[in-house]
Order: sequence, then C-alpha cells, then structure tokens
Amino acid sequence: MKIIRVSEEISIKRSVDSGTEEQRYAVKSIIAEVRKNGDEAVRSYTEKFDGIQLSSFAATPAEVEEAYSTIDPSILEVIKEAAANIRSFHEKQLRPSWMTTDENGTMLGQKVTPLDSAGLYVPGGTAAYPSSVLMNVIPAKVAGVRRIVITSPPGRDGKLPAAVLVAAKEAGAEEIYKIGGAQAIAALAYGTESIKPVDKITGPGNIFVALAKREVFGDVDIDMIAGPSEIAVLADETARANEVAADLLSQAEHDPMACSVLVTASSILAEKVAEEVERQLADLPRREIAGKSIEDFGMIYVAETMEEAVETVNRLAPEHLEVLTENPMELLGQIRHAGAIFLGRYSPEPVGDYFAGPNHVLPTNGTARFSSPLNVEDFQKKSSIVYYSKKSLQENGAKIAAFARLEGLEAHARAIEERLNNKEEK
Amino acid sequence: MKIIRVSEEISIKRSVDSGTEEQRYAVKSIIAEVRKNGDEAVRSYTEKFDGIQLSSFAATPAEVEEAYSTIDPSILEVIKEAAANIRSFHEKQLRPSWMTTDENGTMLGQKVTPLDSAGLYVPGGTAAYPSSVLMNVIPAKVAGVRRIVITSPPGRDGKLPAAVLVAAKEAGAEEIYKIGGAQAIAALAYGTESIKPVDKITGPGNIFVALAKREVFGDVDIDMIAGPSEIAVLADETARANEVAADLLSQAEHDPMACSVLVTASSILAEKVAEEVERQLADLPRREIAGKSIEDFGMIYVAETMEEAVETVNRLAPEHLEVLTENPMELLGQIRHAGAIFLGRYSPEPVGDYFAGPNHVLPTNGTARFSSPLNVEDFQKKSSIVYYSKKSLQENGAKIAAFARLEGLEAHARAIEERLNNKEEK
Repeated sequence: MKIIRVSEEISIKRSVDSGTEEQRYAVKSIIAEVRKNGDEAVRSYTEKFDGIQLSSFAATPAEVEEAYSTIDPSILEVIKEAAANIRSFHEKQLRPSWMTTDENGTMLGQKVTPLDSAGLYVPGGTAAYPSSVLMNVIPAKVAGVRRIVITSPPGRDGKLPAAVLVAAKEAGAEEIYKIGGAQAIAALAYGTESIKPVDKITGPGNIFVALAKREVFGDVDIDMIAGPSEIAVLADETARANEVAADLLSQAEHDPMACSVLVTASSILAEKVAEEVERQLADLPRREIAGKSIEDFGMIYVAETMEEAVETVNRLAPEHLEVLTENPMELLGQIRHAGAIFLGRYSPEPVGDYFAGPNHVLPTNGTARFSSPLNVEDFQKKSSIVYYSKKSLQENGAKIAAFARLEGLEAHARAIEERLNNKEEK
Repeated sequence: MKIIRVSEEISIKRSVDSGTEEQRYAVKSIIAEVRKNGDEAVRSYTEKFDGIQLSSFAATPAEVEEAYSTIDPSILEVIKEAAANIRSFHEKQLRPSWMTTDENGTMLGQKVTPLDSAGLYVPGGTAAYPSSVLMNVIPAKVAGVRRIVITSPPGRDGKLPAAVLVAAKEAGAEEIYKIGGAQAIAALAYGTESIKPVDKITGPGNIFVALAKREVFGDVDIDMIAGPSEIAVLADETARANEVAADLLSQAEHDPMACSVLVTASSILAEKVAEEVERQLADLPRREIAGKSIEDFGMIYVAETMEEAVETVNRLAPEHLEVLTENPMELLGQIRHAGAIFLGRYSPEPVGDYFAGPNHVLPTNGTARFSSPLNVEDFQKKSSIVYYSKKSLQENGAKIAAFARLEGLEAHARAIEERLNNKEEK
C-alpha cells in the first residue's frame, strides 16, 4: 500500500461509474418498452438477459416453503437473530406525529405517515444477498409501509436463492418477483399488468439498475445511488496491524473499485499495516479483486498529530469509519462526517454489515457530509398541520396580509380578508 | 372553472419545466466557466445578466444597516414575529443523538451532526422574497449549521432589497452575496476565490437556477426541484364559496402554471365556487396570471361521497391542502398525502406561507407521496455508532462470520476471526 504524509490537498480517490452512452441508451429503451408493453416486455427481457422463460414472475408460497426446507438451519437461526437486531435498532428511530397548541386556539404540528408502498431491488449473480433484503425491508416494515415488494433476477433454473426468499419472509415482504435489471426498476416505477407500481425504490444493483433508478427518480423516490464501498481506519499506535489489515481487506474484497484507507499519526503502524496487507492478501480467495482495489484505491495517510488525522477523516467523509485508538469514545465528538462509526478493537466493520442492528446502506463517495444511513424515516414522510382559530386569525390576519402585499401577492392578502371582513355566506 | 365528476383515472394536471436543450447547454457552460475562472467568471455573468459591474459580491454591514433604516418599521415587526414563530416550530423538530446499550457491553446509536455549511438562493426580479429567506435560513440555523450563505441577484443599483437583507439578518445568515442565476449555484457548489463552497443548496429560482441545482447535485446536496405551486381544497356544503374561491385564486396568482383544485361532494358548492372565482378574478391585480392558471390548470372535482373526495385528494397528493368541512380534524387520519394541511375556515393557506411557523417549502408535483416539507433534519445528518465489547464479539462473532461466508465474503469473516483467535500483536 502507498504511504503518504497528510497535506492540505488530500482527497480520497474514488471512482463513480456513471455509465457509457450505450448503457444509458439501453436503459432508456428498456424503460420505455416496459411502460409500453408491460409484462410482455418484462418477459422478453428476462428471457434475453437471465436466459429463462417465465410464465409468471411472482415467487409462490410453495417456493418460499421449499427455501425454508433447504436452508441450513444454523444459517436460518443467524438470519432470524440478525433480523431481530435490525428490527430492534430501527424501532428506536420511530417518532410520533406531534403538535403544539396555544391559548388562542392555534394548533400546529407534523403528521407522520408511512409511504403506501416500497420496492427493493436485490442483486443476483454469483452470490445471494440476504443481508441486503433485511437491511432494506425491515426499515420499511417498521415505518409502517403496507406493501413491500422485492424483485431479484432469477437463476437459470427460474428460482431465487433460498437465503433471499427466507430473508424476505423473515423481514416481512409479501410480494416477491423474479425480475432483474432495468426492467425490474421500470416495472416497480410504472407497474405492469401483474405488478402494481411502488412509491419508492431502494437497493443496490449493477450499472443498469443504477442508471434505471436515476432515470425513474422524480416519478418515484429512490434511495441514494451507491458508489463503491469505502472504509477509513483511524488508528493510533495501540492498534494491531493484523487487525487493521484484515479490516482494510474486508472492504477491498467487495469490488476492485472499493476504497480502503488508513489514517494514523504512527509511521510505525503505517509500515506494519502495509506489510500485513500484503501477507494476508496472499491467501485470500478474492485476492484478485482485493489486490486490485488496494493497488488502485488503497492508501495510508500519515498525519503529524491525532488532531490532523481526525480532520483528515472529516475531509474524506468515509462510508465506514473504524476508530482503533486507545480511547475511541473520546474522539466521537470530533468526528463530523462518516456514514457509520465503529468504535474500538472489537467492532470490526462486518459486525455492522450483517448483525448488530444499524443499517448497512450508507452514504458513499463523500456524501456522508450531507447524507445519512438508510433509516425508518426514509419510508415515512411528514405533512405540516396548521389549524388557526377565529381568534388566532383575528389577531394575526392583518400582519399576514401585510407580509403578502410586501411580496406583491394581493390575492393572498384577500384570502385572509375574506374571513375577517365578516362577509355573508355566498 | 371546469367542473367534472371524479372517476378512477383522475390525475392532477401539472406542468414541470425541464428546460430546453439550449437552456441546459447554457447552464453547463456557466458552471464550467465558474469552476475554471472563479470570481472573474461570476463578475462577467453578473454584468451580462444583471447589468451591473460589481467589484466585490458581498453585501457589507453598512448595506444591512441601511436596510434597517429604510424598511417600514411595522413590516420589520412582522418579519421579526414571523421569524420567531418559524424558529419556535422548527426547534420542536430537533432530536438528540441517542444510544442503546446491553449487558454485554454493546453500545449502538445514532449521532446527529449538523451540516458544516448551507447556501440559500433567493430569487430576485420584480418582488422581494423575505419569507423565502426566513423559511430556508431558520431551519439551517436551528439545525446548528455554522456557516449559512445567501445569494440573490442584485438590482441595477447593485443592491439587494431591504426586506431580504433584514430577513437574512433576523434569520441568522452572516454571509450574503449579490449573485444570481446559474453562476450563483456554481459558486456555492464549487467555490471561487471570494466564496467558499457549501455542502447543501436550497431555495427556489427560475429555470436556469433549477437546472444548475440539478447539475451540481451529488457534488453537493440540494433540496427538491420545486414545480409550480398547487392547492387542493377539500370542502363540504358548509364551506363558503367566497372563501374557497379566494383561496384558489391566492394559489393561481403565483404562476400561470400554478394548479388550483376544489374537491367536493357538493355540486351546489361546485357551481357557486366556479361563479365566485370569475367574480373575484375581475379586480385582482395579477388577474392575467391567475386567470391563465385557472383556465389551464384549475379544476373542480365532484365526488359521490366524502370518502371518494378524500381518496381523490390522496391520489392528487397536493402541495397545499385546505380542509373546509364541518369537522376537519376528523378527516386528518384519512389524509395520507399532502405537503401541508390547513384545517378549518380560519386557516387559509397564506397563514402558512408567511407566519404560522411550519415551512412553506413543500413537495410539489405529487411528490408529497414520498417527500416532506423542508425541516431541520434536512440540515443534519446521522452517523450510525457501533461499539462491541470483547464479550459481544465472542458471543456473536461466529454467527457474523457464518453470514459473511454465506454471501461469499471470506475477508469479512477473517476480520472477525483476527480478533477472536487471540493472535499475538504484530
């Protein structure tokens, strides 16, 4: 890994794939075709891209039952326990509608309402991602969303992985469709004969899925467009090099474009970690991916002081931050920008990926400066409530009318005065 | 106004301006030029578009002082009272960071942090918009944003309206720049020699401002891209036609593309309101704008029952909703989708535009299905906190490693096991 000294100009090296002209064109065509021809279009794309002819897209209760009978019982237990942890953490985010009143009879407030429906895209491919199902469905369920839909590309056998079906059921999603790619996003956004549209689409996917989400945004809501995964480890001389290296590699194995960074004021640690990364890389099953990621995007920043190291982290605004220092809690108040913060030696990042409870859908690419982890409020919205009594309006009406006229809006003033001038009913 | 019966296919007629090819090109050029040449580019666009040569962009303390000395003292009092109401309402939205602990020593939580900086665009033109200043700056201030910047196009005299400067000061913004259009958005997003960049840009503007916000989104956060204003009035036979008509017109006067809709089960009210709209329109100063809006986008929907009327409102998901029925509070539980809900006869919409306290920046174009009014949390973000003790990891580590291996991520499992296997420090 490259080791460099912190300077004013540091910025994390990141790569965001915004697709080629051809990919964007392909996605637009797929969406237009699904809007026009519905199920027929989806069926034909599924045959083309997933190599399977499906007469109906919905996963049946029998398929879900089969999944339960084939999954390793000890894995089922882990999925259940993870779901319970995630549910418990997200339930703590719930807030009630609230109001405030005054003696004149005014009532103001915010009404919290869940979205009517939400759709989650689960990527397919070589592995199954039950953790993605739990992390997206549970916040929506806790938020009170009544209709939660999952789509995921079918395998060549026309089925979804058992772990995905089981996680869907455990998380509380009832509608599951075997559709992938841009055609799935189009079906979720605009509906087909067999799939009703949803209000919001979340979940990761390949470049076609990402481009499709960007395309339908506005007609429906979407979560963020996630970039490659990132980790920054903020460590002092008490950190173990083998643990730091293992954590950097756990991020690097995701994707050749993933970004793993160590920030420290200890140049001894920096050297040790660089060595350990090479050593551990050698016998990693995904060493090609992880090696490329470390080579292209890995970096060790050496700061003069811990304060400079912390400020470097704030400038990077990483998706994941591990704090491996003697007293990690004491640094929390100085850390302004990070998606998720893992404190201390026994909180390596995978703890949060699967199990602890907080969401693993996190802001990437420096957007932790202004964005939050996926949470219950992403599946709710607020409406302002304004109730004025006759007395409230009598007391304040003239002021409101004056403000309206200052902005040149006479009809606004008159809407107030129609009430105040005691006109007869018309 | 057109009166039609509610049917299954109803959708609100809306118009969203996404700009012409030329406008999009112009905006891209302006942004590129400001990124390249900074203040010099901003200066040259200000001369070209605003017709004024400015040596420095910042409004000086002397200009703010002058604004206080020229503004009508009674208007100053109204602005102060409105600011106090808005502050009070938004302070009730504040939430602390929180945590949860267990007996093993696990600590999980969410840390709430304000954005470092925010920029507000205030439109110029024929009128001044101090309400827009209050509604955007106060939530940011209450959220704890340290640096709040305002930009607004200067008049031919090189000044900003007194009401805008006074509102900025009352709301708590310290940096004010006399820059308008796409060049202002570019300066806020990327910075120039004299203006540091911000993390989030909010506020309304013309098509060039809207396109520029869309263009810089991702590098910085933005609020919604607002469409034309909308109101739906849900009324029963107890509503006064003159008041309903005045409220519809108060929305229509904003913009020829504004959308005013009445939904009622009373065809008698429908007829009366249609007449009243014509009558009141006749002597409105902005009757050309309001008349065009009513003609093109105004509509009275007559439902069979109140239930059908409420469901129609939910399908429209209006920005503003007035409930002018005998017992408006009783309908609140059925209303799922509306940006702001005004209950009862004495709560006409302008009460919320200027004065009551809730924000007037609201989701338009049906996005109330999934979006909320501008609020304090739009200027804060959360970071997840995960602290596992040695005992927590010993108890759960094997499960987490199993979950990681299920998803094919060996290095994730090893990051856990590096801690559990009691290896020596390296």
